[in-house]
Amino acid sequence: MNIYPKAILPVGFKANGVSCGIKKSGKLDLALFYSQVPAIASCKFTVNKIQAAPLKINKIHLRKAKRYYAILVNSGNANCFTGKAGLLDAEESAMAAAKFMQVNKAGVLLASTGIIGKRMDVSKIKRALPGLIKGLSDEGINKAKQAIMTTDKFAKEITVKFNAGGKTVAVCGVAKGAGMIAPNMATMLAFIFTDACIAKSALDNALAESVEGSFNCITIDGCMSTNDSVMVLANGASKSPLINKGTGYYALFTEALNTVCLQLAKSIIMDAEGATKFIRIKVEGAKNSAQAKKAALAVANSNLFKTAIYGRNPNFGRIVSAVGSSGIELKEESLKIKVSSLKRKNISVDVDIKQGGSSAVVYTSDLTPEYVKINAEYN
Amino acid sequence: MNIYPKAILPVGFKANGVSCGIKKSGKLDLALFYSQVPAIASCKFTVNKIQAAPLKINKIHLRKAKRYYAILVNSGNANCFTGKAGLLDAEESAMAAAKFMQVNKAGVLLASTGIIGKRMDVSKIKRALPGLIKGLSDEGINKAKQAIMTTDKFAKEITVKFNAGGKTVAVCGVAKGAGMIAPNMATMLAFIFTDACIAKSALDNALAESVEGSFNCITIDGCMSTNDSVMVLANGASKSPLINKGTGYYALFTEALNTVCLQLAKSIIMDAEGATKFIRIKVEGAKNSAQAKKAALAVANSNLFKTAIYGRNPNFGRIVSAVGSSGIELKEESLKIKVSSLKRKNISVDVDIKQGGSSAVVYTSDLTPEYVKINAEYN
Repeated sequence: MNIYPKAILPVGFKANGVSCGIKKSGKLDLALFYSQVPAIASCKFTVNKIQAAPLKINKIHLRKAKRYYAILVNSGNANCFTGKAGLLDAEESAMAAAKFMQVNKAGVLLASTGIIGKRMDVSKIKRALPGLIKGLSDEGINKAKQAIMTTDKFAKEITVKFNAGGKTVAVCGVAKGAGMIAPNMATMLAFIFTDACIAKSALDNALAESVEGSFNCITIDGCMSTNDSVMVLANGASKSPLINKGTGYYALFTEALNTVCLQLAKSIIMDAEGATKFIRIKVEGAKNSAQAKKAALAVANSNLFKTAIYGRNPNFGRIVSAVGSSGIELKEESLKIKVSSLKRKNISVDVDIKQGGSSAVVYTSDLTPEYVKINAEYN
Repeated sequence: MNIYPKAILPVGFKANGVSCGIKKSGKLDLALFYSQVPAIASCKFTVNKIQAAPLKINKIHLRKAKRYYAILVNSGNANCFTGKAGLLDAEESAMAAAKFMQVNKAGVLLASTGIIGKRMDVSKIKRALPGLIKGLSDEGINKAKQAIMTTDKFAKEITVKFNAGGKTVAVCGVAKGAGMIAPNMATMLAFIFTDACIAKSALDNALAESVEGSFNCITIDGCMSTNDSVMVLANGASKSPLINKGTGYYALFTEALNTVCLQLAKSIIMDAEGATKFIRIKVEGAKNSAQAKKAALAVANSNLFKTAIYGRNPNFGRIVSAVGSSGIELKEESLKIKVSSLKRKNISVDVDIKQGGSSAVVYTSDLTPEYVKINAEYN
């Protein structure tokens, strides 16, 4: 397995990014990821009860079609809490993109990130589509990865390649993080592309497992967005043997996908607003992995813990209190806590509950005055 | 019903506060609340799985005895996560106090607040006990209310009086808030004294109801302490008619107790570390009150919401997102949100879900750079 710290599109994929005018700054705000050959898709969306319009459209398209050609993404407006008008706007953008690319409408998936509750000007997207599509290329991924960002300080990207039956298979991912300078821009979006030849059920399985161990293991402030999406397109263009569950190739594929998802998830934490620390919290000795994760997230989401780490204040009491408040089974007398030197940027917190054999790891950042300032000062 | 904005001890109660040396600053750190006649007790403790030693001792005493004479409280050390030694320390302090007062050991209840995980020097408490007990008086409540504080900027206190069958009944409460300058000092303690003549079951009922509508409706940072306690002593010295459930006197008593608890709870929010705003969040139209409260707490505990209020940034998206993430039943199209002027210190947030007839109110503060600084800078 070879790991590359940048996005290199697998065979058959093209991308592009342009400025369509949704962002007043004139920065790139419209991205298209395109597969020249029909691809299968697997997606995971936020479980927030309020869901943005593009997610609603995607759910319809995922039921209607079996093959997909593109993901159209805008930044600067979340198209969420925008009612029926917002739904029509999203549908119109998918329809326009499908028409220009000469594919069926349900073959286009959508994502949006930005302000919640404000109508999106879909005419801007429609006007930009011809240029966006005309400019699709391999190198376009470098514009596309910029165009999905809101307040990210750097692009999140990675590519992993492995050999399957003599063919090179690539898994490439880009993401935008929970940069929350402007209000309501807490969205986490990740787009993953692979030329693996893989069965739909195997892809669904692999993605569910990867997301659970990566994007579902990170927290910056415990706030769940209305737009969070992880989307994978697999187009089979590598002509690899068909990857199915239970095969050796499946193990290789999941390892590659896990690596991509975990690296993107960690990059999001590294770019967390105002953060000065990257914190890994491991809970061991839990009765089951759900309890381990619950305890780890309770620590990760504790403002008192997060401020203590920011202040380089090595106190265990806040960790004890957070683990205790998580509601999992534990015994005070067998709880063991270890915290690495708080002077470093990377902090490790190890909690041993000694009640069983399960463990979980989550990643988070510290809570700083800068986080508060950034999230308060927008207007 | 008459309301007094200060602590006035009911008939038969005395109190005192001294400095025993647990706080290095030399400030008052040991309080005793004493009833000259045997009192019944009703208590509510934190549901954190890690519980401080005094809470464990109290639970034994509440099973063993039927009548209580005193609550001994120290600040500066939480006596939590201190193992068997901490348990023995707590027991020893109760035993010493009982001996000096010539009452049975189980007649003494305990509370501690301060650093978690550090052994408490019980000899300091024992040395201070004779003076503490000798100085018990009506006015001693003013020292006692200071001695229970850690980083509170002001004492939380209130007295309510009402007439029951020609007798004046008083309900007096003092509390310490979630002042979190020093680490792990997030404890909320409230002590309530009444000379009402009330049945034990009626007192338990009234307290459970009052706590649910007051202390369980406030949140500063969602962190649950290991020491949180609300304790009521009722000594019957007013010689009021026996107050029992279903009687008119019970309604009067619960009104008085509700007033005391709610005022103390609100005072804790007003004194929240670094806070610039007092925020009331009302959720209406929920299917049931549990769902209403869940939604209200999700908003109250959202860092994004709290920073937006601090920044006087009137954006609804963060409220929408928090309500949606709470997991309660709702429909996007019927969600209505109203926020009062953010220029004032007191902010009202009204959320109407329009799914039913139940509502809930919670109180919280904003999240400020000062909160982070205060909670980070201790060492």
